[in-house]
Amino acid sequence: MVGASADPGKPSNQVLQFLTGVGYEVIPVNPRPDVTEICGLRVYPSLQSIDRPVDMVDVFRPSSELEGIVREAQQIGANVFWAQLGIHDEKAERIAEQGGMKVVMDRCPKIELADPILLRETSSEGILRLTLNDTERRNALSMEMLRQLRKALEQAAEDTSVRVIILAANGRAFSAGHDLREMTQARQAPDGGRTFFEETMAACCGVMQGIVNTPKPVIAEVKGVATAAGCQLVASCDLAYASPSARFATPGVTIGLFCSTPMVALSRNVGNKAAMEMLLTGEMIDAERAAEIGLINRAVPDEQLSDYTQGMAQTIASKSSMTLKTGKEAFYRQQGMSLAEAYEYTSRVMVDNLMKHDAEEGISAFIEKRGPQWSDQ
Amino acid sequence: MVGASADPGKPSNQVLQFLTGVGYEVIPVNPRPDVTEICGLRVYPSLQSIDRPVDMVDVFRPSSELEGIVREAQQIGANVFWAQLGIHDEKAERIAEQGGMKVVMDRCPKIELADPILLRETSSEGILRLTLNDTERRNALSMEMLRQLRKALEQAAEDTSVRVIILAANGRAFSAGHDLREMTQARQAPDGGRTFFEETMAACCGVMQGIVNTPKPVIAEVKGVATAAGCQLVASCDLAYASPSARFATPGVTIGLFCSTPMVALSRNVGNKAAMEMLLTGEMIDAERAAEIGLINRAVPDEQLSDYTQGMAQTIASKSSMTLKTGKEAFYRQQGMSLAEAYEYTSRVMVDNLMKHDAEEGISAFIEKRGPQWSDQ
Amino acid sequence: MVGASADPGKPSNQVLQFLTGVGYEVIPVNPRPDVTEICGLRVYPSLQSIDRPVDMVDVFRPSSELEGIVREAQQIGANVFWAQLGIHDEKAERIAEQGGMKVVMDRCPKIELADPILLRETSSEGILRLTLNDTERRNALSMEMLRQLRKALEQAAEDTSVRVIILAANGRAFSAGHDLREMTQARQAPDGGRTFFEETMAACCGVMQGIVNTPKPVIAEVKGVATAAGCQLVASCDLAYASPSARFATPGVTIGLFCSTPMVALSRNVGNKAAMEMLLTGEMIDAERAAEIGLINRAVPDEQLSDYTQGMAQTIASKSSMTLKTGKEAFYRQQGMSLAEAYEYTSRVMVDNLMKHDAEEGISAFIEKRGPQWSDQ
Repeated sequence: MVGASADPGKPSNQVLQFLTGVGYEVIPVNPRPDVTEICGLRVYPSLQSIDRPVDMVDVFRPSSELEGIVREAQQIGANVFWAQLGIHDEKAERIAEQGGMKVVMDRCPKIELADPILLRETSSEGILRLTLNDTERRNALSMEMLRQLRKALEQAAEDTSVRVIILAANGRAFSAGHDLREMTQARQAPDGGRTFFEETMAACCGVMQGIVNTPKPVIAEVKGVATAAGCQLVASCDLAYASPSARFATPGVTIGLFCSTPMVALSRNVGNKAAMEMLLTGEMIDAERAAEIGLINRAVPDEQLSDYTQGMAQTIASKSSMTLKTGKEAFYRQQGMSLAEAYEYTSRVMVDNLMKHDAEEGISAFIEKRGPQWSDQ
Repeated sequence: MVGASADPGKPSNQVLQFLTGVGYEVIPVNPRPDVTEICGLRVYPSLQSIDRPVDMVDVFRPSSELEGIVREAQQIGANVFWAQLGIHDEKAERIAEQGGMKVVMDRCPKIELADPILLRETSSEGILRLTLNDTERRNALSMEMLRQLRKALEQAAEDTSVRVIILAANGRAFSAGHDLREMTQARQAPDGGRTFFEETMAACCGVMQGIVNTPKPVIAEVKGVATAAGCQLVASCDLAYASPSARFATPGVTIGLFCSTPMVALSRNVGNKAAMEMLLTGEMIDAERAAEIGLINRAVPDEQLSDYTQGMAQTIASKSSMTLKTGKEAFYRQQGMSLAEAYEYTSRVMVDNLMKHDAEEGISAFIEKRGPQWSDQ
Repeated sequence: MVGASADPGKPSNQVLQFLTGVGYEVIPVNPRPDVTEICGLRVYPSLQSIDRPVDMVDVFRPSSELEGIVREAQQIGANVFWAQLGIHDEKAERIAEQGGMKVVMDRCPKIELADPILLRETSSEGILRLTLNDTERRNALSMEMLRQLRKALEQAAEDTSVRVIILAANGRAFSAGHDLREMTQARQAPDGGRTFFEETMAACCGVMQGIVNTPKPVIAEVKGVATAAGCQLVASCDLAYASPSARFATPGVTIGLFCSTPMVALSRNVGNKAAMEMLLTGEMIDAERAAEIGLINRAVPDEQLSDYTQGMAQTIASKSSMTLKTGKEAFYRQQGMSLAEAYEYTSRVMVDNLMKHDAEEGISAFIEKRGPQWSDQ
């Protein structure tokens, strides 16, 4: 952020706080030698002095300075150039676009992002709550939503303070699956949309496998309908709880597009007959049936659902994250193996686990009838 | 049919209509130049003028003509020679038998086939109803029943007017599995029956895999008992509904012959413990338990069962058959793959499906809130 | 047993009966020509005249004879040399130890084994009942328990009189899994316990796979808690029945040691969501839930449980053991195969089974409406 101010009364300061709050990493740039920190963030005197890659440059400086800042932004390899409300310069815009940058001028990310489509909250117990918040589009898994989900999962995987992830949603739908309008628009492309469809599938499968492959347990908390890739999202989570009024379907067959990727996750949780009925008829099932067939763990009364998933998350967050990581990884890896291979592999996992600090500590604590002190190692 | 008559009052005409009705392809042969079509079928002047292979020759001509017709039948490579009631000639019989043909004289296929063992009905919505009808043998999967089932499945796979298949049964048993008398008789062969057993297993596994591999969804509608390979038939269908009084078992263990092939289908639908209990004890389970363990979708009151499966079939028949074919094939193929492989494969399936007419039409219709017009492409 | 007596009043005779009763194979040695049989066992005149390998030599002779008997024991390759209460000789002890034998002197195996940790009872119907009896350690799967279980399974596999195995337990716990004290003690070793842990895992996986691989069906009869490897034991059995008060858990995550080997058996019986909930939270489930998710076949009222499993075992024991062996082996082998491979493999199994005596007999008996006479071939 070029032109970041330490004064909480200034728009640049407010926007910085907002962006940080919704999960962006913001680097304030201000040449004044007395401003070394804004909102706890280190201030750099210029774009070129920043020692990390920069994705987007957001400018709070007069329009007349834009041209110079664009050239600087190009030099540091920024991808997006954003000038705030009221700031605009056509020459700068042209330079930026010719250099391959995306340009946004005369707009404010705080307003654009006022209603972010994915909310992140972290509790003191290490529980990250991701809430789908694109209520207008019924939490469709648009390219932007998939991008944000993937990024959130990747960051959570690296973040040692995150121990468990809850995936929830605002609005009446948990998620309606792919964004059909976005896909229909893509048909205008010269290739009839094929490239976009491939990218969408790659992004979607990336998120679904990201849930399975992240070392942190992921719990789905489902209210409303979860359909198509939205149903796949539930099936992909390690655990899933739903309110009795939640509904699940893989309705692609009804619009000519069989739910072939959702069925990968569905059929790894649900028996053939029940999965095929959902896939061939496209009809909704309720939470009680979803629990019966193994798509979710159980239905929990609506008003207790959030507390229930929070309680489950706390139980799991109280374990050693070394142990959780070891076990979750091994669980999915051993599934495709023969019995003999699976025992050989998990025996090695067990011995390695036994040699770790937290296994020695946990077993000692159990024998000594005291609580364990995890090092997460 | 040599000697076919265009006169509905003549036996040959009645038999022709009957045979056509129960699914046989009949070619009328009549040398009269004014008879060019009987019951909508093209008439050929002689056996030799027929431009297709002929399996069986059925004769409605005086006994004195038989010898000549036998020689003609041999020349066109027919396998069976059938002379109607009252028609018989020993010399013709000898010639036919020496030439390797099966010979039936003085009998009528209409009477012999009056009660065919597999009934076929097609509804206007594209629903093919196959009904096992060998009630005396409790719908045993005899070689002939397996042959007819396989043929019916193959024809349905090719027939674009068939969108969904219902597999039902007449009589008190859905199917009692293999025909034990037929198998016991086969032990008289010099090899103790091994060849016949191998053929039976190949035929049976062919039908079971035919159900899985046909692009059309197959629904089992079960009343009465389904045991051994009969139970396997239910397990092999994509969907299965049963009356509450239906019973299921894999009782081979009780007669010294473990239900090893039925368990392939059983164990792909039912968990280990429940499958093993059926296999090791051979005892019956009822429809409610079968639904619990995933062998069937659900139990439906007896008097509603046919309407229920018909309704399910209509729901599915209303989809694009391109979509159904795409999805059913992908469902079974992705099952043995690792998660990453399955997602890679089904992503390709999804993109190809998106590029098809019916996906574009279906999605557009959905967005425009109208019914889709399928091209089945 | 050197110095075995035919007199029921003598200690050697009582110890012999006891050892036989708890499952040891005892060979009486007595040079008196008039003593040819003790308790139905053939008597050998000397150690060297025994025509089978001998594991342990147990001596009921005066201390002065020990040295000579030790040398004889060495010559026949015995591993353990045991002198009864009151019998001791230092020189003999030194010779035995130098020769690599384990030496126990002045102790009695009847006292040492008075409360054996694994009980074996065989019924006349061919039902072997193995009862975990290490109640003080909550039937922990210590190295000794695993060794005895493995041996019992191996002997049962060879023993044609054993047709079915029931695995039960005395005391308040079915089994608490690995012996944590034993594992903690092992950490004192220079390698921090790694070798012991590897041996434990190998022993444990050996027992679990032994249950799956033995040709005899194995039924778990569960009262009390079955946790960690104890829960794995239940999951590994072909069938499992539990009293309503039984409890199941994979609580390793709570002590820092994820139940990675137990989950191999668990996840082959239970769907992903339910398995993951047990593994990630470590919490107990009751028998009703265990039946719902497929970990056990069903809950049976406590006072009826033993009769129920006995009844199941009798039902299964009444089948041909050739058939049971054929089917159990094929069941687990075909699971990892594709549908086509599985049908090809089991078709061959079926044809071979059909060519066996007991299939011919069983089918004939069925057709002739009489009971079959099994040859178990």
